[in-house]
Amino acid sequence: MTADFELSHLISKRAASRQTSHFSRGPPPKDTPPGFKAAEKFIPLHWGTPNEGFFPIESIDVNVVDHPFQASLGNSLTNASLEALSISGQDSKNQNYTKVSIKKHSSDPDALDLAHGLQYSEVKGTPELLKFTREFITRTHKPNYEEWDTITSNGAGEGLNKVVEAILDPGDVVLVEEFTFTPFLQNIRNVGGVPVPIKLNLSHDSEGLDIEYLTDLLENWEELKPGLSKPKALYTIPTGQNPTGLTQSIGLRRKVYALAEKYDFFIIEDDPYGYLTLPSFQKPSSTIKLDNYLTVEEYLKDHLTPSYLTIDSKGSVIRVETFSKLFAPGLRLGFIVAHERIIEVMTKYSEIVVRSSSGTSQTILTNVIKHAFGGVDGWLNWILKMRATYSHRKDILLNTIYESKAYKSGYIDVIDPHAGMFASVIINFPSGTDIEAKIKLLIFKFLHYGVGVVPGINMAADKEFSKERGAFFRITYAPAPNDQVLTEGGELMMKAIVDFFEKDFEF
Amino acid sequence: MTADFELSHLISKRAASRQTSHFSRGPPPKDTPPGFKAAEKFIPLHWGTPNEGFFPIESIDVNVVDHPFQASLGNSLTNASLEALSISGQDSKNQNYTKVSIKKHSSDPDALDLAHGLQYSEVKGTPELLKFTREFITRTHKPNYEEWDTITSNGAGEGLNKVVEAILDPGDVVLVEEFTFTPFLQNIRNVGGVPVPIKLNLSHDSEGLDIEYLTDLLENWEELKPGLSKPKALYTIPTGQNPTGLTQSIGLRRKVYALAEKYDFFIIEDDPYGYLTLPSFQKPSSTIKLDNYLTVEEYLKDHLTPSYLTIDSKGSVIRVETFSKLFAPGLRLGFIVAHERIIEVMTKYSEIVVRSSSGTSQTILTNVIKHAFGGVDGWLNWILKMRATYSHRKDILLNTIYESKAYKSGYIDVIDPHAGMFASVIINFPSGTDIEAKIKLLIFKFLHYGVGVVPGINMAADKEFSKERGAFFRITYAPAPNDQVLTEGGELMMKAIVDFFEKDFEF
Repeated sequence: MTADFELSHLISKRAASRQTSHFSRGPPPKDTPPGFKAAEKFIPLHWGTPNEGFFPIESIDVNVVDHPFQASLGNSLTNASLEALSISGQDSKNQNYTKVSIKKHSSDPDALDLAHGLQYSEVKGTPELLKFTREFITRTHKPNYEEWDTITSNGAGEGLNKVVEAILDPGDVVLVEEFTFTPFLQNIRNVGGVPVPIKLNLSHDSEGLDIEYLTDLLENWEELKPGLSKPKALYTIPTGQNPTGLTQSIGLRRKVYALAEKYDFFIIEDDPYGYLTLPSFQKPSSTIKLDNYLTVEEYLKDHLTPSYLTIDSKGSVIRVETFSKLFAPGLRLGFIVAHERIIEVMTKYSEIVVRSSSGTSQTILTNVIKHAFGGVDGWLNWILKMRATYSHRKDILLNTIYESKAYKSGYIDVIDPHAGMFASVIINFPSGTDIEAKIKLLIFKFLHYGVGVVPGINMAADKEFSKERGAFFRITYAPAPNDQVLTEGGELMMKAIVDFFEKDFEF
Repeated sequence: MTADFELSHLISKRAASRQTSHFSRGPPPKDTPPGFKAAEKFIPLHWGTPNEGFFPIESIDVNVVDHPFQASLGNSLTNASLEALSISGQDSKNQNYTKVSIKKHSSDPDALDLAHGLQYSEVKGTPELLKFTREFITRTHKPNYEEWDTITSNGAGEGLNKVVEAILDPGDVVLVEEFTFTPFLQNIRNVGGVPVPIKLNLSHDSEGLDIEYLTDLLENWEELKPGLSKPKALYTIPTGQNPTGLTQSIGLRRKVYALAEKYDFFIIEDDPYGYLTLPSFQKPSSTIKLDNYLTVEEYLKDHLTPSYLTIDSKGSVIRVETFSKLFAPGLRLGFIVAHERIIEVMTKYSEIVVRSSSGTSQTILTNVIKHAFGGVDGWLNWILKMRATYSHRKDILLNTIYESKAYKSGYIDVIDPHAGMFASVIINFPSGTDIEAKIKLLIFKFLHYGVGVVPGINMAADKEFSKERGAFFRITYAPAPNDQVLTEGGELMMKAIVDFFEKDFEF
């Protein structure tokens, strides 16, 4: 760690001591014998890399759609969100896809062709993809300092693991939202770290993280958490929080960032679907219009909540992104934005443990974004089409809830998300209810009715800590094949709740 | 660990204690309330997986070659290995590739289509690829017991890391070949393990591992390595060893396996290119014939050295394979074969840290092998074409050496490999030479002449231990674009050696 990074002391001891070396590196230049001059031409008999002539693939053609669900048009299912996004008159028999041809050798020196994409490549990521991530972040969430960098990951899960490997030593504390993406708790524990939950405000007009609770906890840490070391990081999903669906305003983020500065900890910003901003519920029409699309400028100016990066002036924020939700999970590809010193530490870890991300995925993604979508703004346009589709789906699902007897009878509240893939249904149990027992029973009720939902309490970092606030269910409009299935799912869920209330919370 | 696995006590404490859980798993069936019956139809509002209609790719066409370097035919470079493998009359303007079309939805229920391949998938690997790896190992290196299994990795490097995470605790010892794939030493050290080098026999007719040295070391461990715990594993690259190029006979493997049984340790078999068996040097003709190809049966019966798996009767062997050398490194895809209990342990680790391998890579590889090559035997046929090409390249490079003044003057010996991508040139320094200093100078000589080679000593696990045997260089015939470059590289290397000897080992 060089002195120019103020937070060097927060790097894990394990990470700071990691040594990498490769046998193929040459001797240090200082020992050069007199008379030595490196030949201008150089024939490699050293690297154990197969020539690309050995690769069995000569070229790959990727057929790219113009908008989500394009190929499903004309099928027999009712699907307003599909029809709405179609170009009129187009049907499934007459599709026009944009063909992106990736050759083994491209004449464009900046291209990520197969000779490079299928070869061993840079641990940090291919230069072409890193360039895109840099341009993309500059356009969307530009950090408030210069020395930031990016590294690819094998998806957000592996990206988050890079983060714990960079900053956590055994015994180090990470603050987490009390309901959270629980697999990350295993990453924390895997390196001996300790997750400590922070209360969330759970209501339809809240912003999630309870800033009063957090402030008080930090002010009185020694007293409230005796024996635990001071937190080294806060892990947050600030936009379309998983599982609640809540989004922190930029105002709240500023307050949280000020606490991070004051109490000397990192903010780990996990943002897998925050680009999918969503307007407040509107009664869905059977079709939505193409002109519902925002322009990129409108979107960036008025809709996208700025990342913690935009407030960050010294490298306190580590942002974890993924292409899983905006492109496809099977790519196993994402990236991290952080201070260049953190990225260096992560690169060393990757060099030893996971090596580089899939070149196949990097090559396909990079070429599709560049040649089918047209670069950063084209990619944002694709995101806006995703957003319009998700927005319609969210309203379809929420409409079944708002129209239900369960909602109208006051049995439930709903969190209408401003971004992402999740909404929450909060069960209004009478006070004094044994929430844990009743939630367990209600899960069976949902299975009995044939609808799968996630109990909020299953995503609690500490079930005891959160038991009073665990009376909610996460629902998602992401996997359903069409509007009809979404509607049916929402209606089944509501019927199950009504049944449960009418049987006085017994099965 | 269940009792049916005799080597459970060798699993690392860290691995044995790993807990995984996912919030979306249902309640345990034992708590089912009376009257509960799961609905037959089930609508998922729980999984946070985007519907495949959101994936921007509708289909991928992969254009697969019939033999290595197919597209280079007809270019202006002398390239016997290319021309030799061509179908006569074919040229680069008139290529016939086999097109493998991967659709979003396949009508074949066993197909790995994009809806599955680009979705979140099984941590162990997609069922389709796992089925292939199982059939492939059954055909090539069938273990001598039933309870074996496979898991995919993100290439051999990440596969080897899975191994250390499964079996090593801090202080645990791994025996390694004294010259080895040094990045693996970092994996060992990363989990607190201790590599201990085993002598190699370095001559053109040796088999690598010095079995007398190994036997003696194990018999007298406490005395020879006071303070070190007994070895938990031996790490070996038994076929076309990196860097030496040496191959252990099945007879030697049996002796090593007997030691593993007697002294209770795992054998970690790293085999990235052992399928590329090579005949002894034959003076290369300007072309080689297509009928030089072996049949699959001949190859399996007489050429492929059986893996340690074929001797293994209880799960002592952990075999690490990769598709990097036979398909392409950029896939970042390989697999591990081991006892099913070891595979379980690795799956838990992957679930937390690296998640699954790239679905993009799995989908392309699986479909190409199935639909362009025709399954296991078709894949072996592709390997035989790779083998024929490598064999020719090896002989081209070695021919420049055997024809050289350096060889004829006795300045060097050569290890002609029976498999893989590497040969070794051993420098016959007069006794009493300061080998370390002279090797360092000779590296500059090679750079001065314009040829890149790897000093064996750079790949020593312990430079002090190996300094007397470190007077060799690893060379490879893998990356060169054609025969002409290979020839030039070999000639330059020999000229540099002659120059060095004639200048009495001064620059």
